[in-house]
Amino acid sequence: MRTFVLLMCLAVGCLAQAPHPCILAIIISAIYLTFLSFQANEKVNAYAKYDYDALGERIRFKEMGSYENKTFGLDALLLFREGVMYTINHKNRTCKKDRLKKEDFHPMEIPADATLLGQVILGSSSGPGQGLLVNTWYGERATPTGGKDKWLSTFTEFGCIPVSTTYYTDKTGWVLTTFFNIVVGIDDPQQFFPPKFCQGAELDATADAANFYSVFKNIN
Amino acid sequence: MRTFVLLMCLAVGCLAQAPHPCILAIIISAIYLTFLSFQANEKVNAYAKYDYDALGERIRFKEMGSYENKTFGLDALLLFREGVMYTINHKNRTCKKDRLKKEDFHPMEIPADATLLGQVILGSSSGPGQGLLVNTWYGERATPTGGKDKWLSTFTEFGCIPVSTTYYTDKTGWVLTTFFNIVVGIDDPQQFFPPKFCQGAELDATADAANFYSVFKNIN
Repeated sequence: MRTFVLLMCLAVGCLAQAPHPCILAIIISAIYLTFLSFQANEKVNAYAKYDYDALGERIRFKEMGSYENKTFGLDALLLFREGVMYTINHKNRTCKKDRLKKEDFHPMEIPADATLLGQVILGSSSGPGQGLLVNTWYGERATPTGGKDKWLSTFTEFGCIPVSTTYYTDKTGWVLTTFFNIVVGIDDPQQFFPPKFCQGAELDATADAANFYSVFKNIN
Repeated sequence: MRTFVLLMCLAVGCLAQAPHPCILAIIISAIYLTFLSFQANEKVNAYAKYDYDALGERIRFKEMGSYENKTFGLDALLLFREGVMYTINHKNRTCKKDRLKKEDFHPMEIPADATLLGQVILGSSSGPGQGLLVNTWYGERATPTGGKDKWLSTFTEFGCIPVSTTYYTDKTGWVLTTFFNIVVGIDDPQQFFPPKFCQGAELDATADAANFYSVFKNIN
């Protein structure tokens, strides 16, 4: 990691106009591919349709992938302001309703204390439509247990659009996520409403609060 | 891998105008980052300035990185037409001159028998300068020993510019390379000439012919 950081720092050179940390404070629809490796032999690959509302602190993702060599489908609606997560099973028309910690909403942003590793052009700057100007940032986040999570994110210079993120926690290992086909706006605002058959779902108030990773426990 | 291919295929959907395999038949200068894992505990990270001449079949790369937890610097000039590779040591002003198999020159291209996995936009299509239209291709190449090398490449739709390649051989494992800062043309055509102090270097005609990977044996 240290070598990689050193190498990327060399790539920066002298930036005349240094990029600034930024926040994506809008609604977007995206696709992402995730490679999550809990441990060497426990891997999750996932492909998802992802709707993200920065202002309303709402996330909907419809994911399919493989976990421990079994395929799964997953539809989850995370309403951070309400502190509620729905895991939706369309086949059985059932919903699991869990508590969600409001402070677990991490906006799509480069925080102000992030370190710029470099600004590069993916592809080429020699012709129109051949390149994309991106910034790569590095940061750490202290964990409640005294450890340090590490992350590495590439966002576009124009529009603060995520291209890829790499997040490390001791619990999950490296989680690599590539975003693409991002569209500003949402084609159906009802993506952020739970389906009608979720209305009867009861909140398990005694259970631990859910988070992004515990979603995988509810895999269909 | 199979799941990944399946997932990417879903991303393709119905393409009205399917992309075509392409070749980058020009001179380019680029930067690349490579992660090469020979085996689980034997890793190479490298960062290189890369000059590539498709017509003259010449490659120059000035690389620095880490191999078995030691850092290295490497400057190599591969002249495939002449069948010669120079490994240049600037500190000692010495050169190692090896035979190179002419047929080992692999142009930067998507071969005609490649399979299109998907066309996506890295970043967003919602604003100018926010996205890059790329195609991802998959292919296999039979090896002389009866095995199969596998590769996965992402090239831009416009300009056939490489963005990333992933190559698997039984010998090397997965080799992940990301290209960026690509410029069409070359700022100094003498990059493809060996330095003056290489003129006295003698070709070891009895040694095995070099290839891209055997370069690492000559690490300073």
